[in-house]
Amino acid sequence: MATITFIGLGNMGGPMASNLVRAGHDVTVFDLSKDAVAALVSEGAKTADTAHEAARGAECVITMLPAGQHVEAVYLGDDGLLANLPAGTLVIDSSTIAPETARGVAEEAKARDIPFLDAPVSGGVGGAKAGTLTFICGGAEETFSKAKPILESMGKNIFHAGDHGSGQVAKICNNMMLAILMAGTSEALALGVKNGLDPAVLSEIMKQSSGGNWALNVYNPWPGVMEGVPASRGYEGGFLVNLMNKDLGLAFDNAVKNHAAIPMGSLARNLFELHAGQGNGALDFSSIQRLYRPEDK
Amino acid sequence: MATITFIGLGNMGGPMASNLVRAGHDVTVFDLSKDAVAALVSEGAKTADTAHEAARGAECVITMLPAGQHVEAVYLGDDGLLANLPAGTLVIDSSTIAPETARGVAEEAKARDIPFLDAPVSGGVGGAKAGTLTFICGGAEETFSKAKPILESMGKNIFHAGDHGSGQVAKICNNMMLAILMAGTSEALALGVKNGLDPAVLSEIMKQSSGGNWALNVYNPWPGVMEGVPASRGYEGGFLVNLMNKDLGLAFDNAVKNHAAIPMGSLARNLFELHAGQGNGALDFSSIQRLYRPEDK
Amino acid sequence: MATITFIGLGNMGGPMASNLVRAGHDVTVFDLSKDAVAALVSEGAKTADTAHEAARGAECVITMLPAGQHVEAVYLGDDGLLANLPAGTLVIDSSTIAPETARGVAEEAKARDIPFLDAPVSGGVGGAKAGTLTFICGGAEETFSKAKPILESMGKNIFHAGDHGSGQVAKICNNMMLAILMAGTSEALALGVKNGLDPAVLSEIMKQSSGGNWALNVYNPWPGVMEGVPASRGYEGGFLVNLMNKDLGLAFDNAVKNHAAIPMGSLARNLFELHAGQGNGALDFSSIQRLYRPEDK
Amino acid sequence: MATITFIGLGNMGGPMASNLVRAGHDVTVFDLSKDAVAALVSEGAKTADTAHEAARGAECVITMLPAGQHVEAVYLGDDGLLANLPAGTLVIDSSTIAPETARGVAEEAKARDIPFLDAPVSGGVGGAKAGTLTFICGGAEETFSKAKPILESMGKNIFHAGDHGSGQVAKICNNMMLAILMAGTSEALALGVKNGLDPAVLSEIMKQSSGGNWALNVYNPWPGVMEGVPASRGYEGGFLVNLMNKDLGLAFDNAVKNHAAIPMGSLARNLFELHAGQGNGALDFSSIQRLYRPEDK
Repeated sequence: MATITFIGLGNMGGPMASNLVRAGHDVTVFDLSKDAVAALVSEGAKTADTAHEAARGAECVITMLPAGQHVEAVYLGDDGLLANLPAGTLVIDSSTIAPETARGVAEEAKARDIPFLDAPVSGGVGGAKAGTLTFICGGAEETFSKAKPILESMGKNIFHAGDHGSGQVAKICNNMMLAILMAGTSEALALGVKNGLDPAVLSEIMKQSSGGNWALNVYNPWPGVMEGVPASRGYEGGFLVNLMNKDLGLAFDNAVKNHAAIPMGSLARNLFELHAGQGNGALDFSSIQRLYRPEDK
Repeated sequence: MATITFIGLGNMGGPMASNLVRAGHDVTVFDLSKDAVAALVSEGAKTADTAHEAARGAECVITMLPAGQHVEAVYLGDDGLLANLPAGTLVIDSSTIAPETARGVAEEAKARDIPFLDAPVSGGVGGAKAGTLTFICGGAEETFSKAKPILESMGKNIFHAGDHGSGQVAKICNNMMLAILMAGTSEALALGVKNGLDPAVLSEIMKQSSGGNWALNVYNPWPGVMEGVPASRGYEGGFLVNLMNKDLGLAFDNAVKNHAAIPMGSLARNLFELHAGQGNGALDFSSIQRLYRPEDK
Repeated sequence: MATITFIGLGNMGGPMASNLVRAGHDVTVFDLSKDAVAALVSEGAKTADTAHEAARGAECVITMLPAGQHVEAVYLGDDGLLANLPAGTLVIDSSTIAPETARGVAEEAKARDIPFLDAPVSGGVGGAKAGTLTFICGGAEETFSKAKPILESMGKNIFHAGDHGSGQVAKICNNMMLAILMAGTSEALALGVKNGLDPAVLSEIMKQSSGGNWALNVYNPWPGVMEGVPASRGYEGGFLVNLMNKDLGLAFDNAVKNHAAIPMGSLARNLFELHAGQGNGALDFSSIQRLYRPEDK
Repeated sequence: MATITFIGLGNMGGPMASNLVRAGHDVTVFDLSKDAVAALVSEGAKTADTAHEAARGAECVITMLPAGQHVEAVYLGDDGLLANLPAGTLVIDSSTIAPETARGVAEEAKARDIPFLDAPVSGGVGGAKAGTLTFICGGAEETFSKAKPILESMGKNIFHAGDHGSGQVAKICNNMMLAILMAGTSEALALGVKNGLDPAVLSEIMKQSSGGNWALNVYNPWPGVMEGVPASRGYEGGFLVNLMNKDLGLAFDNAVKNHAAIPMGSLARNLFELHAGQGNGALDFSSIQRLYRPEDK
């Protein structure tokens, strides 16, 4: 069991830290929200007045923050954690941020002999609570090996995508693919229904044929086809359109920097952004189905 | 075992008819190509000088033809098969054609008390030879039940999509989805590789995450990632770009007739058409990967 | 002055026929709507009980019909006009239909020595009333020369695009371009406004720069920027979204038949179809602006 | 006449500075390229060893630099020009950069009482040489008024788009529109030609109809249709695909930051990026025509 400091107790970070506590680690938490901290303390975590104090004595620091600027603020500069942690402390950032930002932090960490891993997750709030997240990691092989047992307290699949920043890249690619799957599945189902087909029958046929994909198979966007998914509860909860748009924004940035053509991903992003613009940003992303069947709203 | 007449012995129809012979049916075949007919006769099929003679005495007539106009020519009009078959003969058309064309044939069949099924297939030449095709059927429930045992001699999954034309509709939707999956997967892999990721590692991560889909999981378009797929043999064989474009053309026609918005499917179709225009029409459709990495050509 | 029979007195055909009457031609009209016929008769046109009777003795027959099937029904077959008009009668079809349909009619006309022109128009109801339509003609040079003076009674620009069907092709290309211009202009204006720019100032800058185009320059889609356009009267009147979608459907059909890649035109068509699906089909097509700023609805 | 310091003597900056000299201004230039400086000195400009020395005593400083990071390096920080120029010096940046970057410079300028204008140009190298550039300016009205007479020595149309950053925003919107126009025009022409139309005839018809736009009217992408444009000299010179992609990258960034949907602009950007990926980055941007007719390469 390890001495771990966890910073960032939001919708994702909170349950992730809980799972570390539950697994028996010695966990100290920090967040600007006193309520979030109190909840973790009630479960057995310690806390401290500042991030620096919280990190004192930690073998491993994990952060889960909203965006790149927060990650830079926590880690970089003379007041940042990296300048104040002992060499050898394992540092894992699970925020979803641009690969360049992750590489910038990794570089400063390297200069200080601090092993760093970018380790964004997929699996949503549900996965965070259930401890079944997927971690997609970028960094040195030995850092990955050291981090893996800790990450297994919070997730089920722990992947090593490659060097620093690769975790972020793989997540960007995966979530762009997911946006394409969801928009494409919604469109194919709507086309079938316009022709009089039963969406459940069409879903079943495509699942077992070459149209099968994650969105269709386990997260069907048509209301009533599948139980327990957002589509069957008014698109409440799940992975919000606004969060998908954040990830697709990272894909846009990345494609510009790398001169990559991403026509399908770009179109998906623009459809989700049109959808958000029509007031659906706080719905689950499978609600893109409604763009194709507005009569249903 | 049934007395079956099979018309249309092309790349798909030939092996389908072979499987009927092999299953023990009494099969009479017809095709304009004497070589194609001779091959089937050598396997035990009978033949005749005309389609009409070939169909005489059949309990079931199956057609596998290139396009809607051929289907109409064979079945409709005073010289067509429907006007000359006894009521009650089971008629199955496995050609991939527009749903309206299928419905037109079904209507004339109904007027003559001939049970008709549109039953397009997926699975390609490989599936036709192996007898593992998927049949997606449209027509009355009792017609489907009568046809199913015969179709099982040629395929593994036999779906009933709904009324007349529904088989064609479901195939159009599925193949449009497939085009989206293949273009999207190629794009996501290319984006990852531009960022320095290993395409095999990225494929593995996405397969086990929410980016998983048929194209990625069983037909990976990146050369060398998966054995036995067209991408690993120079995109030879498989499902040709030109045939995918034929199916996407049916999707376009259908979307126009139904005022359906299909932005993702349309973009995929246009990418495949750009790809064909650059001389790749006779390659497997997973060669769309090359549009994203022309340096590899 | 010529003896002219005009068939099809809808929103476009009615005012076109009026202009022929006003120009002094000897005009006989036919339509299934008695009111439409009565209106023209009150302006000085003659009429008859059937299209055939109306066409008797005409030097020139002009049709303006909703779609290809109507054009075929009027002209083709033993009961069609072509089988019953004397050789040498000038026949002009101004309907917007598929090029193949126009070519089919032209072929039968040629077999009967009837000079035929496909001559679709642009300019809308306003242009029809004002006699300022643009005619885009396909057919032989000498047929075009004979038709031109008659068309000049109804239009201002009379173009000869090429052989039979070319008028339809040029119209399809032009209207696809127009859809791209309108969607693109709406999008560029919305992007500027999201950044705080004044849409009128941005419009003025782009008009005088390389972003200038017909939609921006004379049909600005942003409410209040330009007087006298649909955008400044709640998108009433003008060229309806549904009619644009009809023309874009012809572009889709044509692209499929010719294996042409039309990514930009396809996306525009799908945006207009999404817009129609949200209940805007009967608004002017510049209302696509609202797709980009739904807060304004 | 004014005392002006001009920094950045590239393909654009060089001829712009020449025009200032020719107009009779007292011009001091600076660039890291000694050849570029020597050329201007031979035309009558002065120079200095550093940017700071070059700017000493200037009433007006103008910069023309490749990208945002260069602009920030020149102006910001303790070593930057803003920290070392006297209050009241007019500062104009004509680089094409992100609006936020321009706003950042403007903010620091304001804190030091230095009137600042972002003034990106359009018109290319040809316009720079001929002194016919378009300047699209963002900043205070009085700064614009002071700058206008100076800009008129280098350009023909001088627009005031709005507040700081607005010049950049308007240029982004205009160039995104231009990309849409060029891709759309290329596509419409290719569709017509696939149908057998003469590209010159189709161009003429669309120019005079509702398809008219800057790309079609003055920069026709089809080889041979128009004299004196890049399409008629193998797409040499003009506005390079790579530069268009730089501007479209700014549009992507901006759309992400503003949650703007830009489906048409995104598709155009991806088509230009696919085109660049196929080795055409150093051709004029009208070469996108070749994507639609690869047989011509």
